[in-house]
Amino acid sequence: MQFHQHGYVSGDPRIKPAEGTGINRPVELPAEMDVLIVGAGPAGMITAAQLSAFPNLSTRIVERRPGRLEIGQADGIQARSVETFQAFGFAERIITEAYRITATVFWKPDPVDHTRIARAARAPDDTTGISEFPHLIVNQARVLDYFAEVMAYSPARITPDYGWAFQSLEIAATGEYPVAVTLLRTGENAGAVRVVHAKYVVGADGAHSAVRESIGAKHSSIHANHAWGVMDVLAVTDFPDIRAKCAIQSGDGGNILLIPREGGSLFRMYVDLGDVVEDGQHAVRNTTIETIIAKANRILHPYTLDVRSVAWTSVYEVGHRLTDRFDDVPLDQLGARLPRVFITGDACHTHSAKAGQGMNVSMQDGFNVAWKIAHVLEGRSPASLLATYSAERQVIAKDLIDFDLEWSTLMAMRPEDMEDPTELEDYYVRTFEFPAGFMTQYQPSMLIGQPVHQDLAMGFPIGKRFKSAPVVRVADANPVQLGHHHRADGRWRLYAFADAPAIGEPSALSDWARWLSTSPESPLVKYTPKDGDIDAVFDVKLIAQQDFEGVDLGRVPATFMPRTGPFGLIDYELVYAADPVRDIFEARGIDRGGAVVVVRPDQYVANVLPLTDTAGLAGFFGQLMLAAG
Amino acid sequence: MQFHQHGYVSGDPRIKPAEGTGINRPVELPAEMDVLIVGAGPAGMITAAQLSAFPNLSTRIVERRPGRLEIGQADGIQARSVETFQAFGFAERIITEAYRITATVFWKPDPVDHTRIARAARAPDDTTGISEFPHLIVNQARVLDYFAEVMAYSPARITPDYGWAFQSLEIAATGEYPVAVTLLRTGENAGAVRVVHAKYVVGADGAHSAVRESIGAKHSSIHANHAWGVMDVLAVTDFPDIRAKCAIQSGDGGNILLIPREGGSLFRMYVDLGDVVEDGQHAVRNTTIETIIAKANRILHPYTLDVRSVAWTSVYEVGHRLTDRFDDVPLDQLGARLPRVFITGDACHTHSAKAGQGMNVSMQDGFNVAWKIAHVLEGRSPASLLATYSAERQVIAKDLIDFDLEWSTLMAMRPEDMEDPTELEDYYVRTFEFPAGFMTQYQPSMLIGQPVHQDLAMGFPIGKRFKSAPVVRVADANPVQLGHHHRADGRWRLYAFADAPAIGEPSALSDWARWLSTSPESPLVKYTPKDGDIDAVFDVKLIAQQDFEGVDLGRVPATFMPRTGPFGLIDYELVYAADPVRDIFEARGIDRGGAVVVVRPDQYVANVLPLTDTAGLAGFFGQLMLAAG
Repeated sequence: MQFHQHGYVSGDPRIKPAEGTGINRPVELPAEMDVLIVGAGPAGMITAAQLSAFPNLSTRIVERRPGRLEIGQADGIQARSVETFQAFGFAERIITEAYRITATVFWKPDPVDHTRIARAARAPDDTTGISEFPHLIVNQARVLDYFAEVMAYSPARITPDYGWAFQSLEIAATGEYPVAVTLLRTGENAGAVRVVHAKYVVGADGAHSAVRESIGAKHSSIHANHAWGVMDVLAVTDFPDIRAKCAIQSGDGGNILLIPREGGSLFRMYVDLGDVVEDGQHAVRNTTIETIIAKANRILHPYTLDVRSVAWTSVYEVGHRLTDRFDDVPLDQLGARLPRVFITGDACHTHSAKAGQGMNVSMQDGFNVAWKIAHVLEGRSPASLLATYSAERQVIAKDLIDFDLEWSTLMAMRPEDMEDPTELEDYYVRTFEFPAGFMTQYQPSMLIGQPVHQDLAMGFPIGKRFKSAPVVRVADANPVQLGHHHRADGRWRLYAFADAPAIGEPSALSDWARWLSTSPESPLVKYTPKDGDIDAVFDVKLIAQQDFEGVDLGRVPATFMPRTGPFGLIDYELVYAADPVRDIFEARGIDRGGAVVVVRPDQYVANVLPLTDTAGLAGFFGQLMLAAG
Repeated sequence: MQFHQHGYVSGDPRIKPAEGTGINRPVELPAEMDVLIVGAGPAGMITAAQLSAFPNLSTRIVERRPGRLEIGQADGIQARSVETFQAFGFAERIITEAYRITATVFWKPDPVDHTRIARAARAPDDTTGISEFPHLIVNQARVLDYFAEVMAYSPARITPDYGWAFQSLEIAATGEYPVAVTLLRTGENAGAVRVVHAKYVVGADGAHSAVRESIGAKHSSIHANHAWGVMDVLAVTDFPDIRAKCAIQSGDGGNILLIPREGGSLFRMYVDLGDVVEDGQHAVRNTTIETIIAKANRILHPYTLDVRSVAWTSVYEVGHRLTDRFDDVPLDQLGARLPRVFITGDACHTHSAKAGQGMNVSMQDGFNVAWKIAHVLEGRSPASLLATYSAERQVIAKDLIDFDLEWSTLMAMRPEDMEDPTELEDYYVRTFEFPAGFMTQYQPSMLIGQPVHQDLAMGFPIGKRFKSAPVVRVADANPVQLGHHHRADGRWRLYAFADAPAIGEPSALSDWARWLSTSPESPLVKYTPKDGDIDAVFDVKLIAQQDFEGVDLGRVPATFMPRTGPFGLIDYELVYAADPVRDIFEARGIDRGGAVVVVRPDQYVANVLPLTDTAGLAGFFGQLMLAAG
């Protein structure tokens, strides 16, 4: 965590000085704004949190609820989400209070006596070390609390505008704030109407999204509705795995997904209530908590469940649905015009809760769209960048729904109908990368390079998220995770993995550094505003092959030790050395001739290039950035 | 972190429900209180934080300052302190924002050219793995902020009473609140006098302690006063180790202790100004910041230091001083009467800042005295327990001063005067356990057993702090640190390391568990109030030799799965299994026949006993606890 650079900070360093729109931010919703976000769930809040790093932009987030979410809803946090929380600065705190999943335990009918369940298998999570972050369970309300803190402590000082429901929007062909949004007061003064104007609108307003309807996106059902009784309860039970994540199938076809919850006592059960017909009657919604508890007891036999307190209960009736596009540009006008309105999260994809994916994929939607909007609004990138949001995320949502459909079908299947008795747990282990959130791989586009030089850094697949590895920070000899220095600050990252000569000697690295600092073609020179700090747009790091004692800071090119801020202080946190025990060059397959790894603000690897291919680097950014000033 | 046991908690689980005195805590200082703490520095704040876990007691903490500390003073946080912060629940947060020391770098006159300094040696911290916690640097102000949060979020809802200076106290021979304390308003209404009455007073009012004077304790000078110019600055320098902790000696006899600070840019320098005569003139205090900077530049030659911003500067003039006793009982009346007033921290021991010890030892003073006062006030223990505070801590302070004197003398010595050129760094490495805070070993007393059965658990030396080790929590198969479940909740811990038979089979462990739950001699039975939860006074844990899959929760004695709280829920966080890869029985030398390890509320090992020696366990607690009710 870096602070004090602009002068001594006495209090909590997480509270940044207000800047720009954060200095006199209006309490009431203004008439005009750069970005309006609709809905303060996970997708909307991460969008606002990312935009809060851009204090020159005015961002508002409206929410129908009168205040913070109290309880219920999603709770599964995949490792990719924790990695994202790390970039936003609250991973360590949420890990401390969350439940950590280390395995899934499979219970099935006892082969000897089908009226009883018995432990059949135990599938550990992440056996291949796909992430240094854990798989967590914590209530969505707490995730929103942490994002709210990030926003409130950010330079832009964003707080949600509660008590506003979205009604409709209209997009004008011209004008500075072309999207007119009609909002309706909820709670006090309910029904009062307000029209505000925005440059861009992000709809994060859930499965019944009115923003989606207003842009005429097609939301198709892929599979019939399915119902679950869900309960968050405190109970006494002799079921021995009550503190483990379990998939439980009983002999009579019943099944439960058991999710232990944060705090050591609470747990959630999803009790399967079967497929339901869409007759508009929703009879299943009348299922009582008593019925759900009774059904859970039948499935758990011979174990019993004595529920002492019900924290929350609901009947979910959800189908698998996907929206055909995630912005307001009809598919037949792709490329002909650019988007002004985006939809994210449940507004574009709904599915079962069984794989614990919803909140996670929704947050990645928001992380993807937010920096793109900011870069376009700040003039860093052309508006054509915005078309990549729908292009990148719609296919991810499709994959998600396919996966969830397969998984939830398997979970609902009677063991005797399976071809292989271990089909369920085998599938879980085989596909683990997907639910952990790391299977996303964006395809080549204006902001994802062709994998021409992938062989220079095999462990950083282009299009996938940058997978951190241990290194040693030279200045203070601290063992750190290279990826954890990537904060959600909206900057591009250039990781220069050095070639073999000692740092400071003639080398491809030295040439690259000189080019980056001085050439008119260099993205650093071309896209960094003249009146700002040299690290304002790009964060440039060096990773030496030598160990930290083999790097002489006095000989490191100034490119990697920039002087910034009002005092012109040196940034000492950009020069790293390989950890001899866990060499990052070995671990990530980096060529000993060096490589440049380009990483997007949302942590995805955008390109891998040789140190010598400066033209390639200049060309890559040339298609997605605009010269500063 | 455990919560929800009393019903669903929607917000931050760190905020506990108010109880007892916390429910309607008076904003103004009341006339009477159980405990009055004087001084809101590290020693006072940890005392208040520990007492805040006892909501039946009324605790107030007065401080001369008008509000929170803004800047300056101590910043070294040894691993033992981070371990302590973990027990109070904020280690992970302070680690994130702190600077982490991994080594000390020694700079000495260049052997070839004595006018220049050169890097001579690098001594890594903690090469023997003495702690899983890091060695940190973070401003004292932030430590106080975190303790303030613990207090404010605790059931007792304690906040400091700022703007009150201690003037004097008188101890009456009788009465419920025998200590009359005269306080003086500072700031607004300065000079207004107030007399309050307390059962116990803790003086944590610093080196010039008025509480110490009021109890007539003798504060002796052990060594002449020494002066340092200290500065917290932002600067540009070509000194390559500016982000490393350095001991720098120049050829002309100057020396600097360089301490990088949190945030990546700020650093502290202690520039040695030499021994000073105590003539009452304090001429050295007139040393200007310009002089200190100029002196630093001379010492650092050939490197230069261009100071851009001075966050804080001071001239320290400190001697090595020790108080003969840490409470109000004169040495010749030891045992004849019991203490009512205690002094802690700088009030009892002052020394150089060179070893980064002051704040750390002071906090352990407070941690030691606070739970003892609470247990006496709650009727858990006889008042004789209070005499152990001075007995235990005065000798620690003596050791500290001896160590610091040796260390600061060595640091001030000219290299040419040393017998061995590597004497300084060798001493640092050899004595590392001391400054890390783990050398403290309390001697046998009413609350430290004789080491009769030490051989049953060689890795848990009686009298030293309980050194954590990795285990697996059985209920959720989570890899955890056994010691991290020890919260600063004022409870005694009984760790039952099982013998070889499977849990639930006939065994010494089974017999011990039955005895503990049912025998009238059992401390659990005898000292736990009948109207409270069975885990209110003792936290009883089981550690099996088998791996977690070899422990059947259905067969674990109920002693280790107690049912508590309004819903009678099972506590699943008390049953652990050895981690096959890092077996705690191997790592801590636990006898395969099992052992009981008794740990005090302040984390020190009080006793080690065989599972079969129930009489020994009963006898141990018999001398320091009082039957409940």
